[in-house]
This record gives sequence, C-alpha cells and structure tokens, in this order.
Amino acid sequence: MPIFRRFALIVLGASAAASAAAQTPAYTPDGKLKFPDNYREWIFLSAGLDMSYREESGTAGHSTFDNVFVDPAAYRDFQRNGTWPDKSLLVLESRAAAGTGSINRHGKFQTTERKGVEVHVKDTQRFSGGWAFFSVDGTRPASQIPVSEACYACHLQHAAVDTTFVQFYPTLLGIATQKGTLAPGYRP
Amino acid sequence: MPIFRRFALIVLGASAAASAAAQTPAYTPDGKLKFPDNYREWIFLSAGLDMSYREESGTAGHSTFDNVFVDPAAYRDFQRNGTWPDKSLLVLESRAAAGTGSINRHGKFQTTERKGVEVHVKDTQRFSGGWAFFSVDGTRPASQIPVSEACYACHLQHAAVDTTFVQFYPTLLGIATQKGTLAPGYRP
Repeated sequence: MPIFRRFALIVLGASAAASAAAQTPAYTPDGKLKFPDNYREWIFLSAGLDMSYREESGTAGHSTFDNVFVDPAAYRDFQRNGTWPDKSLLVLESRAAAGTGSINRHGKFQTTERKGVEVHVKDTQRFSGGWAFFSVDGTRPASQIPVSEACYACHLQHAAVDTTFVQFYPTLLGIATQKGTLAPGYRP
Repeated sequence: MPIFRRFALIVLGASAAASAAAQTPAYTPDGKLKFPDNYREWIFLSAGLDMSYREESGTAGHSTFDNVFVDPAAYRDFQRNGTWPDKSLLVLESRAAAGTGSINRHGKFQTTERKGVEVHVKDTQRFSGGWAFFSVDGTRPASQIPVSEACYACHLQHAAVDTTFVQFYPTLLGIATQKGTLAPGYRP
C-alpha cells in the first residue's frame, strides 16, 4: 500500500472515532427522539432542589432534585461563542431527594429513584423556533411536547440565552455576559 | 523516512494526546496538590443541599449546594470493577444556594458564588491508607488536610466503598452492590 494511502486511512480512522463519540439528536422514523442513554457522562451544568417558577409552591411534602447536563460538543461550542450550536442536547433529570439516610442527618441528598427525564433539543431544520422539548418515559423514544405547552412560551420569554435558562447555570452565565449573547429581553 | 517509522510516530502521537487528556494527581515539589482546574468537565456523581452528618444542624440561615465530580478514567474503571483505581480524583465543590432570582420563586438553585473546593485523592504510594484530602484555596496548590482530622476517620468508618461515600452517588451504588465491593462494615 502506498504510504500516502496508509496515512490517509489512519487519519480517516481517527476522524470516524471522533464523530462516533460526538452526540447529536437521533430520531425514529416517526419523529420520536431516541433516548440519549449516556447523558450522565455529559457535562454537568447545575442542580436545583424543588425549583418552581409559580407563586404557589407545588412540592406538597415530597422533594426533588433536578440535574442538568449538556452534550460535550455543545458545551465546548458555548465556551467559545456564548451560545448553542445546532444539534445541541440538554437533559433535565429529576431525582427523588431524601433527608435522613446512611449517616446524613440534615439537608437533602439524591437517591437512586430517577423520577423523569426531559430533553431540550436544538435542530433548526426540524423545529419551528429552532428548539423542541421531549418528555422521556423510561428509556423509550420520546414524543415531542406540543408547542402549545407553557414551557415553550416561558423559555422564549424568560431564558437568558437562546431559550435556555443559562441564568441558572453558574459556569455559563459569565461567558454569555462576556460574549454579549444574553437575550435582548433578559432581565436578571 | 521508512514507512514503519512514520507509522510508529503517528501511533505515538495519538497515544501522547490520550495520556495528556487523562487526569492524574499532580503535585508541587513540596507535596501540594495542583488544582485540577478542569474538574467541571469531569463526570458528575451527585449534588446535595445543606447535608450534615451531625445531629445539630449547622447551616444557620445560609444554604449551600455540594457538587461531586470524578475524573473520567476513574469513573470508567469504577463501572468495570465497582471500586476506584489508583490515582483517582474526586472533587467536592461547594456553591452558594439562592431561593428567589430571575423567575424562580421556590426551592433552591446554584449561584455563581463558589464557596470552596475539596479534593479526595487515591495515591497508594504517597499516602498511608491510600487516600488523602486536600482543601483548595482559590486555585492555588493545596496542602493536605492532616490525617488527624475527623474526615479521615469518618470516611474510613462510614463510607460504602473504599473510603468514598458511594451511598450518596446514585448511579454508582448499584454497581458496587452488584460487584460486591461494598465495604465489609458498611450499613445502608
């Protein structure tokens, strides 16, 4: 084999491995989002406990953590540009909170009970407005949440960057501020 | 250049890149731990709010999240073996919690105020008992916390796996249980 061709094969091999590792949204033929089952190995953005955007509290005695993850390629792009590239995937994982357990006596920790997963996907050719929400049941392919649901309007109106709540992601808010990518109507 | 030698150089190049990306503890000549400044890109294990192992509560009006991260190589090893390889690094990041802010009205979210970082390092040739704790001030190299401090005895006595609190890391506890690596004296 000529040396040029062998070198090219080696380079192609490395490139194929890199793109296999990259995470982009994948869909079933009927338009459902395939479950991104390795999201716990993505980049962690933040966690909250019993957060609610309504005046009345809705937790009613049970307590839940939310963990937010983003795929690594989108995270690196955000660090460079202060906003999300096409094909970004953000995952919100809800997990039951416990107070006492093992040696813990106060405060809250996360348990093995995962209560739900939602995915926010940027895919500008597929979704009007650029983004869509999906609610995952178990690990099955997820149907899109209808755009008439309140989450779309709320994110459009209140999100710090490109319909995402970067105001709650401590390591990204400063980048967006510095890069000038905060949404025009955003108020801290 | 002979083809064999050129091929070997390419392979060496790839290997060097992989080992540069791997995270292992690095020390100053006087034995301080260098700050692992990319820990936010490691694997997230869990977050807690105002956790305390003492009977009396110590938060006194302020509220703090703890986020735990582990270096990716150690995480992959744990998935295979249910315990930590030598050179593992776990980072505990404390971050101020806020209740109201932007559109949030209830519960708690994490703010841009990082209150502290502690690192738990497994380095069996360097530390008696295999592990050491370091408390980081800013991003400066960190001195080891003396082994007479309570954290060592508490972790030795109560941790689910190899002096680490895997009982509070929901995605790892099942692995350790399945692999039979829970500490002999561990009680859930």
